[in-house]
Amino acid sequence: MLKFLALFSFPFTAFAAGAEGSPVGENLLWLALILMSARLFAPLAQRIGFPAVLGELLLGVALGNLTLLGITFFGTITHDPIIAFIAELGVIVLLLQIGLETRLKDMVAVGPRAFGVGAIGIVMPFVLGAWVVGPWLLPGKDANAYLFLGATLSATSVGITGRVFRDLGKLDLPAARIVLGAAVIDDVLGLVILAVVSSLVSVGTVSAGAVGLILAKAVLFLGGSIGIGRLIAPWTSRSLARLDAGPSMLFAQVLSTALALSWLAHVMGLAPIIGAFAAGLLFEPVFLRKFERPAIVREIEPLLPTDLPVGEPGLARLVERLRVILARHSGHQHEHMIEPIGYFFVPVFFVLTGMQVDLQTLADPSILIVGLGVTAAAILGKLVAGLAAGREAGGWLVGWGMVPRGEVGLIFAMTGRQLGVMSEAMFSVIVIMVILTTLITPPVLTLLLKSRRS
Amino acid sequence: MLKFLALFSFPFTAFAAGAEGSPVGENLLWLALILMSARLFAPLAQRIGFPAVLGELLLGVALGNLTLLGITFFGTITHDPIIAFIAELGVIVLLLQIGLETRLKDMVAVGPRAFGVGAIGIVMPFVLGAWVVGPWLLPGKDANAYLFLGATLSATSVGITGRVFRDLGKLDLPAARIVLGAAVIDDVLGLVILAVVSSLVSVGTVSAGAVGLILAKAVLFLGGSIGIGRLIAPWTSRSLARLDAGPSMLFAQVLSTALALSWLAHVMGLAPIIGAFAAGLLFEPVFLRKFERPAIVREIEPLLPTDLPVGEPGLARLVERLRVILARHSGHQHEHMIEPIGYFFVPVFFVLTGMQVDLQTLADPSILIVGLGVTAAAILGKLVAGLAAGREAGGWLVGWGMVPRGEVGLIFAMTGRQLGVMSEAMFSVIVIMVILTTLITPPVLTLLLKSRRS
Repeated sequence: MLKFLALFSFPFTAFAAGAEGSPVGENLLWLALILMSARLFAPLAQRIGFPAVLGELLLGVALGNLTLLGITFFGTITHDPIIAFIAELGVIVLLLQIGLETRLKDMVAVGPRAFGVGAIGIVMPFVLGAWVVGPWLLPGKDANAYLFLGATLSATSVGITGRVFRDLGKLDLPAARIVLGAAVIDDVLGLVILAVVSSLVSVGTVSAGAVGLILAKAVLFLGGSIGIGRLIAPWTSRSLARLDAGPSMLFAQVLSTALALSWLAHVMGLAPIIGAFAAGLLFEPVFLRKFERPAIVREIEPLLPTDLPVGEPGLARLVERLRVILARHSGHQHEHMIEPIGYFFVPVFFVLTGMQVDLQTLADPSILIVGLGVTAAAILGKLVAGLAAGREAGGWLVGWGMVPRGEVGLIFAMTGRQLGVMSEAMFSVIVIMVILTTLITPPVLTLLLKSRRS
Repeated sequence: MLKFLALFSFPFTAFAAGAEGSPVGENLLWLALILMSARLFAPLAQRIGFPAVLGELLLGVALGNLTLLGITFFGTITHDPIIAFIAELGVIVLLLQIGLETRLKDMVAVGPRAFGVGAIGIVMPFVLGAWVVGPWLLPGKDANAYLFLGATLSATSVGITGRVFRDLGKLDLPAARIVLGAAVIDDVLGLVILAVVSSLVSVGTVSAGAVGLILAKAVLFLGGSIGIGRLIAPWTSRSLARLDAGPSMLFAQVLSTALALSWLAHVMGLAPIIGAFAAGLLFEPVFLRKFERPAIVREIEPLLPTDLPVGEPGLARLVERLRVILARHSGHQHEHMIEPIGYFFVPVFFVLTGMQVDLQTLADPSILIVGLGVTAAAILGKLVAGLAAGREAGGWLVGWGMVPRGEVGLIFAMTGRQLGVMSEAMFSVIVIMVILTTLITPPVLTLLLKSRRS
């Protein structure tokens, strides 16, 4: 019965009796397991001084490779579209949070440097991959294969780095903002490179029009969403607050904006997370001041006397301190409201990212050695770009922050495999590079940030 | 490319360039639209004195029937498994919230009455459907068809009622607890009736063993989850708080327990929401007191002098009042943390429930008339059960609280159609009954609650 019901319409699957092992049912269990075990792993990572995200990634690696021990239960998660969507919401919520905690003017301030870093961070790895390590470590391949290898090395996946900076409370560093800005640039330039290389492979030529269209769409989206958004956000916030000044309206406005812009970015060919980040940049706290402050703040405020009675120094001191505390807890309520959503969704993304890691690819020594070489080139390329940010901005931080290739690199490689230009061996090499760049970054960034502090 | 990527693994769909109109992308837009428009409709419903859920249901009805105007965009949502899962999480979170706001001892106190109400609420509509309105309004059908009609009328869907009581802040009424308890009983007895009727139709006999198994599984789940859960919850809470006393751990514990018990209920053949409700009943606030109170509370408390200095009456007054406020905001933090999750998921469930309403079924007058008659019987049967709760407990409230058939009734009807015993006409009649009982309840309950107040 269930199959039919599942096809027919939604609530039935939930309530149909005796639906043992239906994907819907199992997804509930999977989410419970991911949510709880991620929260158990995070403190362990933090105990040894690393951000929670490392615990989630390693948990994912462990779960994803239980199949090596014959435990296949978790193997199916990575192929489940519902869990995949939850994970996608996770990285969208994360970039929304990062955007909300970033002021646009700070982004603009680092704009030029971010652009330089992003551009160099695309060009350097591309050159290294296409004309140096490719021909050297994987000789005798088609020139187009090397181009694709270069394109793969040029990718940047900002999720990991953003999470590390956030876990360690370092989003306010210039380095963090430069990485975020450079990641946006890289997503756009990466699209261009992928389009160019793909059309070189498939039709042998590159149409300037196609490249122009990609650039136009990207610029249109970024300029349009942030530009227009910031014009109307104050107005919509005011009118929505007039309709209902409660927290749920505030929450709905911020989150639905993030979801809508993620969709728009996706339609424009950009990564959805770029849209979520843009949505976060839209909402300056001032736009949202019309919404109610937390209940406890609203209850305490009227108790504080405006004119302090003489002869009560203790009262004066207390009131003064209370005002400071209340002020601190008055703003940013939307951030506090998005937080629980993040607790729920974000770990799913990082655990599943970890589950993508197939340790078997590390088994073949010859491929592993080549993979290590390509990984070195992938890291070197981004470090060079990072140094362009300048020492005082924390060049090493910026460089390492752009090292993770994550899912973006894999998409490039898979496109190459789809077009039949990339061999299985080269694909395995790239998988190794993605694994290493993704897993090595959180600890390295943590150590760099700690050495700065001391 | 996208299809292949979607099959292969998760994050790719999110990042693959130019994936216009992929379901993943569109789901982001749908969620944004549902979330925002639900929040816009809710205040309108509240302005005219009705709970937010009515606004969400009517919004769903409007969106779902835009197809009549040739706008098919929203039509596809109701068939999307991802949106369906999000909606399912919505009703699970709702019942978790209701469980968290309900004390187990209060449930036990109304237990016997809830059982009586539940049993009568199953038997009365079943008898009315199978032997009165069935043969009378839909003459000449097979006897089994009438049995299925009766089974359909006996169903209870607690989501709507629970939400109305919660929207209006009336979950502490005895009537609310009786309805919740009766709904749990009904879910179990409904399974039994469905199994009995189904096997009568398919094999002609009923095996006492099968019925016994259903009852055993249900009792085992309810007794086991709540009984064992309450034994270990204090211990797990203490040890988890020792590992990490932060809010995210508290949140993960409560939510993952709800998800796991929802899955277990689902596997046991019960509705997942029964598991979520049970999970909510597990966590008495006292179990969770080891977890940190809100940051603002922790910041203010040390400022309050333990021994009040003489000669500062203003200080004494302020401190005294602050203690009261801080105490009120110290507990129930887990409820506050689940709230935003509810804001996001819950409207999806009710909007999609509304979208199930196909207004075209109301077009055929002959079927509409029969539908009205069956609806009257459906309401009458539950009202009689409600009166068994006794006047002082708000018999009318209890009765009306059990009127909505929602998705449960539809499952029963669809099972009947699957078994070939239920004609299209009878199915349409049942759809009308489900629509009317579901849409009429929120306003009626609201009016009843208001008349009590005045």
